[in-house]
Amino acid sequence: DGATVDLGRKARCGFGEVIYGPGKSADLVARLIETQLEAGQDSLVTRIDPQTAVAATHRFTHARHNPVARTLRVSSAPIVSGLQPSPNGLHVAVVTAGSTDAPVAEEAIETIEWMGVPVSRFDDIGVAGPQRLIAAVPKLREASAVVVVAGMEGALPSVVAGHLAVPIFAVPTSVGYGASLGGLTPLLGMLSACAANVAVVNIDAGFKGGYLAGMVVSQLRQVTPDTCQAS
Amino acid sequence: DGATVDLGRKARCGFGEVIYGPGKSADLVARLIETQLEAGQDSLVTRIDPQTAVAATHRFTHARHNPVARTLRVSSAPIVSGLQPSPNGLHVAVVTAGSTDAPVAEEAIETIEWMGVPVSRFDDIGVAGPQRLIAAVPKLREASAVVVVAGMEGALPSVVAGHLAVPIFAVPTSVGYGASLGGLTPLLGMLSACAANVAVVNIDAGFKGGYLAGMVVSQLRQVTPDTCQAS
Amino acid sequence: DGATVDLGRKARCGFGEVIYGPGKSADLVARLIETQLEAGQDSLVTRIDPQTAVAATHRFTHARHNPVARTLRVSSAPIVSGLQPSPNGLHVAVVTAGSTDAPVAEEAIETIEWMGVPVSRFDDIGVAGPQRLIAAVPKLREASAVVVVAGMEGALPSVVAGHLAVPIFAVPTSVGYGASLGGLTPLLGMLSACAANVAVVNIDAGFKGGYLAGMVVSQLRQVTPDTCQAS
Amino acid sequence: DGATVDLGRKARCGFGEVIYGPGKSADLVARLIETQLEAGQDSLVTRIDPQTAVAATHRFTHARHNPVARTLRVSSAPIVSGLQPSPNGLHVAVVTAGSTDAPVAEEAIETIEWMGVPVSRFDDIGVAGPQRLIAAVPKLREASAVVVVAGMEGALPSVVAGHLAVPIFAVPTSVGYGASLGGLTPLLGMLSACAANVAVVNIDAGFKGGYLAGMVVSQLRQVTPDTCQAS
Amino acid sequence: DGATVDLGRKARCGFGEVIYGPGKSADLVARLIETQLEAGQDSLVTRIDPQTAVAATHRFTHARHNPVARTLRVSSAPIVSGLQPSPNGLHVAVVTAGSTDAPVAEEAIETIEWMGVPVSRFDDIGVAGPQRLIAAVPKLREASAVVVVAGMEGALPSVVAGHLAVPIFAVPTSVGYGASLGGLTPLLGMLSACAANVAVVNIDAGFKGGYLAGMVVSQLRQVTPDTCQAS
Amino acid sequence: DGATVDLGRKARCGFGEVIYGPGKSADLVARLIETQLEAGQDSLVTRIDPQTAVAATHRFTHARHNPVARTLRVSSAPIVSGLQPSPNGLHVAVVTAGSTDAPVAEEAIETIEWMGVPVSRFDDIGVAGPQRLIAAVPKLREASAVVVVAGMEGALPSVVAGHLAVPIFAVPTSVGYGASLGGLTPLLGMLSACAANVAVVNIDAGFKGGYLAGMVVSQLRQVTPDTCQAS
Amino acid sequence: DGATVDLGRKARCGFGEVIYGPGKSADLVARLIETQLEAGQDSLVTRIDPQTAVAATHRFTHARHNPVARTLRVSSAPIVSGLQPSPNGLHVAVVTAGSTDAPVAEEAIETIEWMGVPVSRFDDIGVAGPQRLIAAVPKLREASAVVVVAGMEGALPSVVAGHLAVPIFAVPTSVGYGASLGGLTPLLGMLSACAANVAVVNIDAGFKGGYLAGMVVSQLRQVTPDTCQAS
Amino acid sequence: DGATVDLGRKARCGFGEVIYGPGKSADLVARLIETQLEAGQDSLVTRIDPQTAVAATHRFTHARHNPVARTLRVSSAPIVSGLQPSPNGLHVAVVTAGSTDAPVAEEAIETIEWMGVPVSRFDDIGVAGPQRLIAAVPKLREASAVVVVAGMEGALPSVVAGHLAVPIFAVPTSVGYGASLGGLTPLLGMLSACAANVAVVNIDAGFKGGYLAGMVVSQLRQVTPDTCQAS
Ligand SMILES: Nc1ncnc2c1ncn2[C@@H]1O[C@H](COP(=O)(O)O)[C@@H](O)[C@H]1O
Ligand SMILES: Nc1ncnc2c1ncn2[C@@H]1O[C@H](COP(=O)(O)O)[C@@H](O)[C@H]1O
Ligand SMILES: Nc1ncnc2c1ncn2[C@@H]1O[C@H](COP(=O)(O)O)[C@@H](O)[C@H]1O
Ligand SMILES: Nc1ncnc2c1ncn2[C@@H]1O[C@H](COP(=O)(O)O)[C@@H](O)[C@H]1O
Ligand SMILES: [Mg+2]
Ligand SMILES: [Mg+2]
Ligand SMILES: [Mg+2]
Ligand SMILES: [Mg+2]
Ligand SMILES: [Mg+2]
Ligand SMILES: [Mg+2]
Ligand SMILES: [Mg+2]
Ligand SMILES: [Mg+2]
Repeated sequence: DGATVDLGRKARCGFGEVIYGPGKSADLVARLIETQLEAGQDSLVTRIDPQTAVAATHRFTHARHNPVARTLRVSSAPIVSGLQPSPNGLHVAVVTAGSTDAPVAEEAIETIEWMGVPVSRFDDIGVAGPQRLIAAVPKLREASAVVVVAGMEGALPSVVAGHLAVPIFAVPTSVGYGASLGGLTPLLGMLSACAANVAVVNIDAGFKGGYLAGMVVSQLRQVTPDTCQAS
Repeated sequence: DGATVDLGRKARCGFGEVIYGPGKSADLVARLIETQLEAGQDSLVTRIDPQTAVAATHRFTHARHNPVARTLRVSSAPIVSGLQPSPNGLHVAVVTAGSTDAPVAEEAIETIEWMGVPVSRFDDIGVAGPQRLIAAVPKLREASAVVVVAGMEGALPSVVAGHLAVPIFAVPTSVGYGASLGGLTPLLGMLSACAANVAVVNIDAGFKGGYLAGMVVSQLRQVTPDTCQAS
Repeated sequence: DGATVDLGRKARCGFGEVIYGPGKSADLVARLIETQLEAGQDSLVTRIDPQTAVAATHRFTHARHNPVARTLRVSSAPIVSGLQPSPNGLHVAVVTAGSTDAPVAEEAIETIEWMGVPVSRFDDIGVAGPQRLIAAVPKLREASAVVVVAGMEGALPSVVAGHLAVPIFAVPTSVGYGASLGGLTPLLGMLSACAANVAVVNIDAGFKGGYLAGMVVSQLRQVTPDTCQAS
Repeated sequence: DGATVDLGRKARCGFGEVIYGPGKSADLVARLIETQLEAGQDSLVTRIDPQTAVAATHRFTHARHNPVARTLRVSSAPIVSGLQPSPNGLHVAVVTAGSTDAPVAEEAIETIEWMGVPVSRFDDIGVAGPQRLIAAVPKLREASAVVVVAGMEGALPSVVAGHLAVPIFAVPTSVGYGASLGGLTPLLGMLSACAANVAVVNIDAGFKGGYLAGMVVSQLRQVTPDTCQAS
Repeated sequence: DGATVDLGRKARCGFGEVIYGPGKSADLVARLIETQLEAGQDSLVTRIDPQTAVAATHRFTHARHNPVARTLRVSSAPIVSGLQPSPNGLHVAVVTAGSTDAPVAEEAIETIEWMGVPVSRFDDIGVAGPQRLIAAVPKLREASAVVVVAGMEGALPSVVAGHLAVPIFAVPTSVGYGASLGGLTPLLGMLSACAANVAVVNIDAGFKGGYLAGMVVSQLRQVTPDTCQAS
Repeated sequence: DGATVDLGRKARCGFGEVIYGPGKSADLVARLIETQLEAGQDSLVTRIDPQTAVAATHRFTHARHNPVARTLRVSSAPIVSGLQPSPNGLHVAVVTAGSTDAPVAEEAIETIEWMGVPVSRFDDIGVAGPQRLIAAVPKLREASAVVVVAGMEGALPSVVAGHLAVPIFAVPTSVGYGASLGGLTPLLGMLSACAANVAVVNIDAGFKGGYLAGMVVSQLRQVTPDTCQAS
Repeated sequence: DGATVDLGRKARCGFGEVIYGPGKSADLVARLIETQLEAGQDSLVTRIDPQTAVAATHRFTHARHNPVARTLRVSSAPIVSGLQPSPNGLHVAVVTAGSTDAPVAEEAIETIEWMGVPVSRFDDIGVAGPQRLIAAVPKLREASAVVVVAGMEGALPSVVAGHLAVPIFAVPTSVGYGASLGGLTPLLGMLSACAANVAVVNIDAGFKGGYLAGMVVSQLRQVTPDTCQAS
Repeated sequence: DGATVDLGRKARCGFGEVIYGPGKSADLVARLIETQLEAGQDSLVTRIDPQTAVAATHRFTHARHNPVARTLRVSSAPIVSGLQPSPNGLHVAVVTAGSTDAPVAEEAIETIEWMGVPVSRFDDIGVAGPQRLIAAVPKLREASAVVVVAGMEGALPSVVAGHLAVPIFAVPTSVGYGASLGGLTPLLGMLSACAANVAVVNIDAGFKGGYLAGMVVSQLRQVTPDTCQAS
């Protein structure tokens, strides 16, 4: 019915194709996952609705559905999640401005873990309470790439970036109302950031922010000799 | 020729009409100023071009042209400028994110001084260098109203507001390029600020930001008994 | 679960953190309120949906749910509401252009009352019926700060501002259709106001308009000696 | 060279084709005017630059160039201008909010006079000085159609409309800066007006506002018996 | 509860206040109507939802609910509707581009009839079938004002205007998808019309288009001696 | 210096690469043209400024610079231009709404002639003068593809399309002001056209409109036997 | 009730009027279809909702409802669908970027088949998997016109166009989120394509893309002698 | 005069503050550079106009002004530029779609070289000539981060990303006209890319794209043992 999975993406791009959930039936999703598993690739489905996810989950031995993140992961081996990175170990940090940004942050975290990269998390440390970010800076400086998730005015990435020497992947969210224009305002603000080390992805695109940060750390892990990489 | 000055505004609104310069000849500007002086009102002209300002200046005994601010002030008495507020005296603070925001900040300052309100100034303390704002906070907390002038992503008002217990009047500037959309991006960001004490005025409207902050302090000075108000 | 309340905000900003309701469960809201009550802070929740509000209300002795304003207030003491300010007493005035703007005005009023500041109300006095505003001007001139709530073309703040010598906090609403663009048109109009004393907050942000006006009056009440302040 | 004048428009639409100046050479403009004069039609050229206008003027006996309005009128008979309408005579009123709106208002007035309709003028009566409009209302009520020219937030048409029982043709201008978006903000505001009797034309389109108001009065003059129509 | 009806509008503006339905309860609508009836004014409610309309209808002897137009009219006398204007009688013509524009056209027609003005109707004569408009032109030329209702690209008003010598009130509709941007595209197109006699109202604002055209014809009927006006 | 010409485009796409002039020096343009001539390809440069064009022209034997169209064509053989298509011969028609659209139409015509396709031209037949289009329809129906160039509200393509059975390539122009938004309004209007046979290209993109229409006719000429194709 | 079908369109434009479904009842749709059948024209209804389609289907002998495409076709003869074009036969190719674009592609295909033109299909060959497009190029080069359907960034038409010598009709879809702005982003991108042979239709307008491509091939089939046209 | 340089940025962020040129005098620029040199930091000034750059250059021994990139670099040691990275050495690749994108690409390259990171360059390989990108892929795959600079529709980053396993930093340019909206269209398109490894920076922000890619490679060089890193 017109949907095929691009099995060559893993060789070309380092990681398999991520399946975009909207508009796909549970049957189709399951068929695409099976094709990937047969090719030895772990699956990640994003923006999956709960019914489709639950239906698909029942067909596989090792599956993880995160309803907050709206993700489904399927693997040929057990899926581990939520491990904190060891001190000084190469890892990504995921930061949120407010508690309402959690679904986007969780999509980023599921993606990073699917890539096999450790991740630490810093929640609800937006700029209206500046002491919260200050307190987090020392631990944030241990990460090799940072995903910053923020809605409303989206000021947090600029502020975080001013404290750090690593790439910041800013994810604007549709949290807010009125002049935040469904996320366009934080998007444009993040693109206009006065800090140099801020790159931006699409509104609510936790998947992309996580993927890019995960890729940076994945590259670092590949070139780092075992003696140096502790995580 | 169709232009009249609204002499009743001082009685209704507390301060005389401010003359908007663009499209007005030097002759017209001078005539409007004369009308105000005769009515016992000091004049403030904004967005005046240098030629018009210089031509008009020559006609009056007490005039002050600030070419950076693009303002002209004319009074029946000598004009003083640049006095720092005494410690604990009621005053406005004017803050800029970057040095390129100076013209807008100067327009605010000229307006506040025209209102007879003391003003302190904090320059180039944008979010990319967070230690600069932290250092300024104790003195900023002495002000009773704050004007924050910022372009690009316009993150500074939210961050300043998180440290203070007074109204913040945020002035977005057209400093920046691309996604900052000539100031629309910081404007929308400031309106979406997660901090509650941020009100916003038009892009590059240093005059309005200054006027509102000056009005807040002016009200405070009126109700404060002499024993309490030191400035 | 990632949500914490910023208890330091009261010391830094004069009033406690206001809890933004959307996306928060009744359990989470209740837990955040409890944290504030234990710290001796009264709670204000905005944009709360009725179910969550009712569920949360049952847990507290002194709670006030305003379903029109979509607010919930919780205190350790009984909550009084709706008192008119005494003549000449320092207070805020809240004005609406049309009857459809009521929910936003009520959010402003709940916020101002939560701040302990008296408030007067002027309803449905939009510009299409100019005699209504004219009639209200003498009483409006008694207020020390004014919140003007208007949708459609948002002309009312400019018109009100032309009569008054205090700061106007303009709140554009999403009332209207077509070219009013969900509130963007009155927002942009208010920012472009030819009157100098108009500051603007986000679309439908009754909370912010009320907070800023309340802060101005609160500052005035602090510096005013008892002999002078009558309310 | 591809430009022809539509001589049939007078029969179909009541008035001849109005020539849009930009991009047309003085030669072409003169040729088009000649074609109209030969057909017994008076010419109106809008948005003409001064050089082209002066060059064209020299070729014709009865020509009127208004450099403020950027119009050129040519007729086979002497052109009269600036007559005030007699009391109670059918006429259009043209109103401006600020003195900077004059060029657009003059374009409207030239158009109305070219249509042979009397016109009265009310300048600089914007909403920030409300007593000015109030003073003008009695005379404004004598007009049968009103053109209101306003930039910045464009609030004046709504306010004028609330006092009158005739059609208001609102002309937004590009006067203003920042959030007035080159006239888009007053345009959208006028379209969203809460008053029912406000129709809108393009930004800076004094020509169109004048044409429509002139047409309404022209229709009235045609059906009115001589005994009743005094002007 | 904050909603009052502006009874003075009839004296000032020629017709009573039109009640905007959204957000008003059936009780409130009924109360406002009663106030108008007591003052001797017929009521027109727009954008009323069916339940509210039916509930309100039951309370009054002479009421007319048009569910397609979403209007409710209430009078102290029987309401007549749908009469065709006599030949050569002064009247408004209402034109639609496509059959999907009917609800907006009906809102215009109800408004015009409420004003006591005759109206003729021309349906589904959009530009893709040019012979349909050509056929209608002779009868269209009998109207003294024309309302043109069109969505998608909104080309019809320009085309109609090129055939007629009366004011055209163009009403853009939200009919269409994608690039028609919910009506913004026809709105902007109508404002940019190359024809001079096109004025524009808000998207879907059948009420306003009808009101303005009705007002033009109403003025004509007032000055026309009985011997001349046949309808 | 980083600029190369894609010589393979003729084989892949049927016609050689068209050189985009802005930002290219006369030397670079000449070098790119030489590369094409050596490969046996005729050159077309668009958006070339006059100085660059004149400088480049002097280097080649067979060159044609059209300053209105801002094009430069260079060939190894003499360049013919301006031939009218023979009756019934396969050809493109290029139509303009107003005389100000001429530069864009000429860019289309130069492109079509460079493709070796005959072209006919219909100028200044916009919708405000409907009889002009009606008169042109019989000859327009002889074309196999039509380019319609229009600014302001961009209504002409819909109207032309309603008369014809061939593809219409609509080219919006930046002619107009205010609400025509530099061509965005006719662009969006053309995309929303109620006629089915209207495809759209970029604002002022005479080159693209001409290229597509030329390609349609070129395909027809290839499959048409000589006995049938007369031009 | 105001809806009529334009029976003359087939003679003027080559194909009958296509009925736009939204806002039309099953009864009205059936009546319009009957009118067309009686005039010897096959019907195509687009954007029809399933209930209306099923209800209408029951009334006719030869009907085809495609719920994915949201189309209904009715004919006086049996409807065939899904035939692959013979090699070298004149036909249209329809290409999608992702599987989520299928509904728009199916609308195009139903339209092309209704026009009597053969069509081939290439699914899910978007740019993130470049080898998929490369593999399809040889077969794509057999088509005489190509419809490319793509959402998100809409890059596919430019890339396809770089390989082909025929007109590309690009159809942007509303597939995507955030910065793809409901299809505006691919729309604007396709209009800005650096390839010359890309024309664009409205967002999700599979009907229009198919219609234009079908018209190009239909014209070719008419001029092609039978000996040459194999399909 | 309000401008200070943030000397702590090197310690916090890894590289010194980059000086934004617009609005700064040659004297101010020179003073800021001197402050950095004294602190042992090399200077990079962006968006500097030629006069200011030349004036500033004369004051320093080791300065490099790139007028195409509009950059100025000043160091305490000789500045080397333009070295190609050794095969397999860690480096950034900078890619342009068209030759007009060169200034933005050069700004990126100057920034990367200022960071001490090797850079390779691929020019004019946009999607309209697909064989050009295909030819470049093998060498592109040697880079550890890629900057892709493209205007018009901005399709190139998606296409490049589909071939590579490293982060792509996409830089939209203002090259193009009409629907490319000064770079907003490629910006939005890049943000909507269907490829997962594309992050975006501001329009024309070659500096930011280069900085982020340089940072990724700089991190890799730090963790890579000398035996492995060859460049
Ligand atoms: N109605 C409201 N509009 C805008 N901001 C609000 C509103 N209510 C609360 N807030 C702010 O939202 C922040 C809390 O967001 P969160 O961390 O997501 O719970 C607080 O800093 C409040 O100042
Ligand atoms: N459909 C409508 N569109 C725009 N304005 C309307 C409409 N119906 C009524 N109005 C106006 O809305 C105002 C009443 O608003 P409100 O005070 O909220 O009831 C009146 O002044 C009417 O002129
Ligand atoms: N949440 C997401 N946001 C953006 N793109 C995604 C997302 N999830 C998957 N994708 C991309 O969508 C493409 C699949 O689209 P489709 O062919 O419609 O299934 C893959 O190339 C993925 O890289
Ligand atoms: N006027 C034009 N509008 C849009 N694209 C054009 C135009 N002229 C040439 N082009 C395209 O621009 C590309 C050349 O861009 P560049 O590599 O920057 O020289 C070619 O692929 C042409 O198809
Ligand atoms: Mg929080
Ligand atoms: Mg600085
Ligand atoms: Mg009301
Ligand atoms: Mg004035
Ligand atoms: Mg129809
Ligand atoms: Mg013309
Ligand atoms: Mg796919
Ligand atoms: Mg090129």
